Amino acid sequence: MKTHTGGELMIIGGAEDKQGERVILKKVIEITGGSGARLVVLTTATEEPEAIGSEYMNIFSRLGVEKLEILDIHTREEAENENFCRSIEKADGVFFTGGDQLRITSILGGTRVYAAMHHAYRKGTVFIGTSAGASAMSNTMIVDGNDNGPARKCTLKMAPGLGLLNDAIIDQHFDQRGRIGRLLCGVAENPHMLGIGIDEDTAVHVLPDNRFEVLGSNAVTVIDGQSIRSSNVSELRPDEILAITGITLHILPAGYGFDMSGREVLRLH
Amino acid sequence: MKTHTGGELMIIGGAEDKQGERVILKKVIEITGGSGARLVVLTTATEEPEAIGSEYMNIFSRLGVEKLEILDIHTREEAENENFCRSIEKADGVFFTGGDQLRITSILGGTRVYAAMHHAYRKGTVFIGTSAGASAMSNTMIVDGNDNGPARKCTLKMAPGLGLLNDAIIDQHFDQRGRIGRLLCGVAENPHMLGIGIDEDTAVHVLPDNRFEVLGSNAVTVIDGQSIRSSNVSELRPDEILAITGITLHILPAGYGFDMSGREVLRLH
Repeated sequence: MKTHTGGELMIIGGAEDKQGERVILKKVIEITGGSGARLVVLTTATEEPEAIGSEYMNIFSRLGVEKLEILDIHTREEAENENFCRSIEKADGVFFTGGDQLRITSILGGTRVYAAMHHAYRKGTVFIGTSAGASAMSNTMIVDGNDNGPARKCTLKMAPGLGLLNDAIIDQHFDQRGRIGRLLCGVAENPHMLGIGIDEDTAVHVLPDNRFEVLGSNAVTVIDGQSIRSSNVSELRPDEILAITGITLHILPAGYGFDMSGREVLRLH
Repeated sequence: MKTHTGGELMIIGGAEDKQGERVILKKVIEITGGSGARLVVLTTATEEPEAIGSEYMNIFSRLGVEKLEILDIHTREEAENENFCRSIEKADGVFFTGGDQLRITSILGGTRVYAAMHHAYRKGTVFIGTSAGASAMSNTMIVDGNDNGPARKCTLKMAPGLGLLNDAIIDQHFDQRGRIGRLLCGVAENPHMLGIGIDEDTAVHVLPDNRFEVLGSNAVTVIDGQSIRSSNVSELRPDEILAITGITLHILPAGYGFDMSGREVLRLH
């Protein structure tokens, strides 16, 4: 099972440190090629593109990135613009900000920019996403669901994502918003999918060999459904409580990794 | 864009003719290799496996299929059984019955049978699905949603499907249950996905070259979202009505086909 088809991904659970040690953002710069790398920031997810765009402009400039471009694409017409496609094709890294993951897919889906992104990804461009930008990376993405509650069938809304990471479902702001219930529900619906719940200021760095490394100040919750013995997910009425037996769960802070092909925890250092 | 990675698919909108001309079921036998073909019927989707299993046993026997096997897999433990895997590996065709698509994915997902299915598909085994078995074929599948109503964000439930057909969303019993609203909603969420709404007693025969042919007595509704100019799908509150402009729609009866790579209607005969 090869869960992704391109180069590297950096998937951030939102609220990454932007003032202190900035471990995650420094790693983003390192893996895209250092301060000489071309970095493109896509603000499509947010309804406050100016504020978010200038925030990342300042952050990455302070970290020494010289070739930085903010792409403000907020309509499907703009997503057909060849100049934006060329920026993406030339980039070493493409960074998706937070906001609403449905804005990313509904505005970009099926456009020239969408095709350019997938082309760049297959050629090895690094894709980075935080918060909504993290959720959008999987093939089927979580759009909405109850926080801080047990898993109910009815509360989970999913939609087709960008498909940069196959065979997985991402969730973000994970422990901070109490989202394990909704991710368990998604995994129980198809236990072939690996659930990856990423805390704030925490990220997974996905490598071409289908392993990922955890970095940042909190943890990543991995839900492996292959061991599930039974669930009532197909029998539930809306608002009934989910029952699942035999889930395999891992809580992985920095220093740990995970082999998504072999479904094994890696102790890195 | 190559939307599927294996051999042929036959995706049936449910309620296929089982007594009269049986155009679709005869075609299933033809494309799997004729009466000498090994056909496996998977009843995982249904809670009435005995009734449904013996119904298809009778139908396919009457149509001359000699090597027919009904696989009753209804728990995740059964889905780890090596004998079932071997049956699937040896089959020329694997037929998914109707029922509940979440039963298919929640029971089979991540098991040995699931891996055997994907392996067989990559080697060229034909996969056939009707009703729930049709929905399950896409990467992100529709699980539930309001029939006979305008598209509302809140009414659409999706989950990760089997992933035999990528970059598309299937819906079934399409005109009979008034499902265009919910399929439009799914496509608007990511217009890269092609919406394929299949009527009862109607099917699409997907070929390895990424084209499909329509057969059966009703029609297939193709929703091409690439031309969408704008939608409010990311801004909606639950139960608000969806607004979408610029959708491209095709209604295709038998004799028509569609090129999913080029997004072009084909006039076949």
